[in-house]
Amino acid sequence: MTRWEPNARGRLELAALELYSERGYDQTTVAEIARRAGLTERTFFRHFADKREVLFAGSGPLQERLVRGIGEAPDGLAPIDVVGATFESAAEVFGARSTMAGLRQAVVAANPELRERELIKLAALAAALADALRERGVADPAASLAAEAGVAVFKIAFGRWAGGTDEESLKQVIQDSMAELKTVAAGS
Amino acid sequence: MTRWEPNARGRLELAALELYSERGYDQTTVAEIARRAGLTERTFFRHFADKREVLFAGSGPLQERLVRGIGEAPDGLAPIDVVGATFESAAEVFGARSTMAGLRQAVVAANPELRERELIKLAALAAALADALRERGVADPAASLAAEAGVAVFKIAFGRWAGGTDEESLKQVIQDSMAELKTVAAGS
Repeated sequence: MTRWEPNARGRLELAALELYSERGYDQTTVAEIARRAGLTERTFFRHFADKREVLFAGSGPLQERLVRGIGEAPDGLAPIDVVGATFESAAEVFGARSTMAGLRQAVVAANPELRERELIKLAALAAALADALRERGVADPAASLAAEAGVAVFKIAFGRWAGGTDEESLKQVIQDSMAELKTVAAGS
Repeated sequence: MTRWEPNARGRLELAALELYSERGYDQTTVAEIARRAGLTERTFFRHFADKREVLFAGSGPLQERLVRGIGEAPDGLAPIDVVGATFESAAEVFGARSTMAGLRQAVVAANPELRERELIKLAALAAALADALRERGVADPAASLAAEAGVAVFKIAFGRWAGGTDEESLKQVIQDSMAELKTVAAGS
């Protein structure tokens, strides 16, 4: 029998991010995360495979949602606008900027192994989005270019949002960054 | 006293790429590379730190050249055109498509560790190009977006060129891909 712990996952996530920020990622153990959250290690491992997973657990569901979104986007939209609209819609799950998003970005930025992991996840995301665009009949290189450009916009927008202090939603920052990409790409 | 070996570096590079393709990267030793090239292991280590370095030795000089190119680009050019022109100019060092470029791409694509290494090099390149644009007075997020978009174009163009069979130069493929990015980013 396992006891039901209210919001155990969220408590573990916050405890992990606080400890990674205070002591460094490498110096933090799962036992310490569980203790800070007032939970057991066993509960931790019911939610996360390891301490790195706390930082990347969201990337799988995000990718699935984006791939589905691209498949379901209305016909007649240009590929870059399919990608932009899909990222904006997915951004709604992030809600208001949380302390957690900022902590997560800082922890990943401070650790080379985590930065590499992030790059690998983003490259896999770009490949999956390019596949989803090809499924819609978008030819290459347009499919790859729209996917890579969309992921670059998302990466930059997420960093600005997570590190920012004002009230903009992630959706708004993505919208602004996509508009900026269009201006930048138009060139002279 | 070391004997001068004509084009030792190029012979080692070709021998390494052939062996990585035939046997797999993990299964190839430096001793085998040297033997195939008709050289000694000692000569190998005068040119490359290890067998991975054969695949990535060009990325440092390429990055230096691109950063310098961005600094020296004429005033008044839009950031994306600074990046595009600089990549085109750097592409001249690649000359005609060689068997080696195609072999290298296939070897890297086949090995997860090498693919990750490639992603890390490209991310470092994008960061360095964004810095060089900021040095020119380009504000963010335009600097980051132009750098990320430029690196995405280069990555896609290099893959098409190295894997292709026609007579286009890398410079031409980059030019075409950059034009395609502009079309894609313009959207609907």
